[in-house]
Amino acid sequence: MSLIYLDYAAATPLDPRVLARMQPYFSEAFYNPSSPYAPAVAVRRDYEAAKASIAVVIGSRTGELTMTAGATESVNLAFSGGAGHVVATTIEHQAVLAAARQHEHTLVAVDAHGRVDPGAIATAIRPDTWLVSVGLANSEIGTVQPLAKIAAMMKLERTKRREQGNQTPLYLHSDASQGVGQLDVNVARLGVDMLTLNAAKIYGPKQVGLLYASRDVVLQPQIVGGGQEQGRRSGTENVAGVIGMAYAIEHADKARKAEAHRLMQLRDQLQSALTTRFPDAIVSGHAKHRLSGHLHISFPGIDAERLVFALEARGVLVATGSACAANKGTRSHVLEAIGLEPHEADGSLRLSLGKQTDQALIAEAAERIIAVVTLEQERVRR
Amino acid sequence: MSLIYLDYAAATPLDPRVLARMQPYFSEAFYNPSSPYAPAVAVRRDYEAAKASIAVVIGSRTGELTMTAGATESVNLAFSGGAGHVVATTIEHQAVLAAARQHEHTLVAVDAHGRVDPGAIATAIRPDTWLVSVGLANSEIGTVQPLAKIAAMMKLERTKRREQGNQTPLYLHSDASQGVGQLDVNVARLGVDMLTLNAAKIYGPKQVGLLYASRDVVLQPQIVGGGQEQGRRSGTENVAGVIGMAYAIEHADKARKAEAHRLMQLRDQLQSALTTRFPDAIVSGHAKHRLSGHLHISFPGIDAERLVFALEARGVLVATGSACAANKGTRSHVLEAIGLEPHEADGSLRLSLGKQTDQALIAEAAERIIAVVTLEQERVRR
Repeated sequence: MSLIYLDYAAATPLDPRVLARMQPYFSEAFYNPSSPYAPAVAVRRDYEAAKASIAVVIGSRTGELTMTAGATESVNLAFSGGAGHVVATTIEHQAVLAAARQHEHTLVAVDAHGRVDPGAIATAIRPDTWLVSVGLANSEIGTVQPLAKIAAMMKLERTKRREQGNQTPLYLHSDASQGVGQLDVNVARLGVDMLTLNAAKIYGPKQVGLLYASRDVVLQPQIVGGGQEQGRRSGTENVAGVIGMAYAIEHADKARKAEAHRLMQLRDQLQSALTTRFPDAIVSGHAKHRLSGHLHISFPGIDAERLVFALEARGVLVATGSACAANKGTRSHVLEAIGLEPHEADGSLRLSLGKQTDQALIAEAAERIIAVVTLEQERVRR
Repeated sequence: MSLIYLDYAAATPLDPRVLARMQPYFSEAFYNPSSPYAPAVAVRRDYEAAKASIAVVIGSRTGELTMTAGATESVNLAFSGGAGHVVATTIEHQAVLAAARQHEHTLVAVDAHGRVDPGAIATAIRPDTWLVSVGLANSEIGTVQPLAKIAAMMKLERTKRREQGNQTPLYLHSDASQGVGQLDVNVARLGVDMLTLNAAKIYGPKQVGLLYASRDVVLQPQIVGGGQEQGRRSGTENVAGVIGMAYAIEHADKARKAEAHRLMQLRDQLQSALTTRFPDAIVSGHAKHRLSGHLHISFPGIDAERLVFALEARGVLVATGSACAANKGTRSHVLEAIGLEPHEADGSLRLSLGKQTDQALIAEAAERIIAVVTLEQERVRR
């Protein structure tokens, strides 16, 4: 029986071409980029070139990038850029929520589709608010936020502050770990001052991420020492990892439009098959502003954990809610925020598509999911 | 012309067997260890087993290990275990010095061989001192510190505190990044409460390290979010990296005694060849308590940077001082601390040996170094 992986939002396999780019830096080019001799200087050059090519993709300066060990570290670093009140939404990733809790904070509610109203954020902004953090796309329901509109609203806020003599800076940070590869992550077009990205969701290496911070932002380093990354994050550079990330993001960005289109068609095919068979199923997330490879679907009254194991027995790997460790055994805060009833939330699957997903696999997956859900529904009715 | 790498203290190539162990976790076993289905649960199990095997090597409980992105992060996390006064030595790595600067701190001087006197540390300890941080072996001059004696002294201090009703805890942390693979890193025998280790210096993957912290220590997480590593360090686990580190440290520990002996003989051969030819050369670090693969040698009046480049032209890769980014263009704080005069410090090379170093390479390296230093001495004399 063929294995059908539908959990790309949790993890992606490393693209063999990415690994091929990384491999020389494990062996012959293993040098410390801070060493003075030519082979090490070449490694330093390759590292900086990789950062520069990432900067091109997101439209930033190379010096505005701080390479980290992943999105969680990047988010924590972003929240070190100031002190005072911060604003986020109720459906942010655990990393953002935990970082926000270290400040005075306001969490803004979202609508039933998981979208936040820029006006509601404007209302939450206080004179001492220095940071607004809104994820580009939600990892559970896939809803894409109106970042450019939030950015435009914040620009007005900044103007107001200047007029009022309020010198508190006001930054917009976005964790785009889930959006990259399907959405535009150009920092100017997004309108963000800070952006978190991760290589692990775009077939790149795990434990590699970055924080873009515009030159205006003064980050407070969390990891001090040798002064690498312009003093913002000490520790010997992750040469192989960053070179892998550069290739992964370049490739993801090039393939982005075609891939997003392809995934959306497959996702819609799956969604249609499931909702046709189960008319009472609830599809969450925004109908239009949603990650193309994402399908969050609830079967009210069914236990999603049982579904996950029954599907696994038939070779289909899917998630229930977020794969975050913190969520184990608790109900997803995202599903609560969009107003799903407990019996709906508990019956939710997150199906996320990726590179290896094709029409035949989706047809096969739909068939297996339908069979499993049907059996479970019958079991519950008995 | 064969390349002779004598900078193993800066970086080591990844052991191909380590890479072979890591490779499955890049491709077929790429799953998020927090996902619920069996292949992901297997990844989680492999990750925990890797941690357990590291714990065996250092003689700790698995739950006392926090996996990090490297020694610098580990050191920063160690310094988050309390508030108040800290004590370190003047020759600690930049990461320790920078972390110490974030607390009220006392830096204890070392002798001309780079050794710290446990009595001097005892004198520096105040009633509000909660942390003493002393690196197991110095990365520049290779001096090994009397950690067990420091630990014994601190045990007496703790007894005194208890008698005096002083409830401030007193912990010993050691960064053993440079010692592992040549020295015993059993936490009980070292007598430490916290231990920083790194895979990058033992032919393991870069960007993987750990902090051992005994159950008594309450760490303050620096990176919050999904609650991984028992809440002490959030972010999806570095499965491949930790599995690579486990293999690297197991292997390094098994080979340790034989390898330390082998390296010491080679180092002594090199030291003898150079000091015989250049009687005014100064060998730094303790004669006996020194890393076996380490030779720090100064040629007074010679410019070490010129030496490094001249040696590179002859295929010999060596370091001048520490390879730390922060040291660029400044004189090493370690050499200053052991009392080297500027004209001596500026003529220093750090030659560090490793796995691929053998007798023939050492004989060849000695010849090339002698030729280059001779030329430089003649140039200076003219």
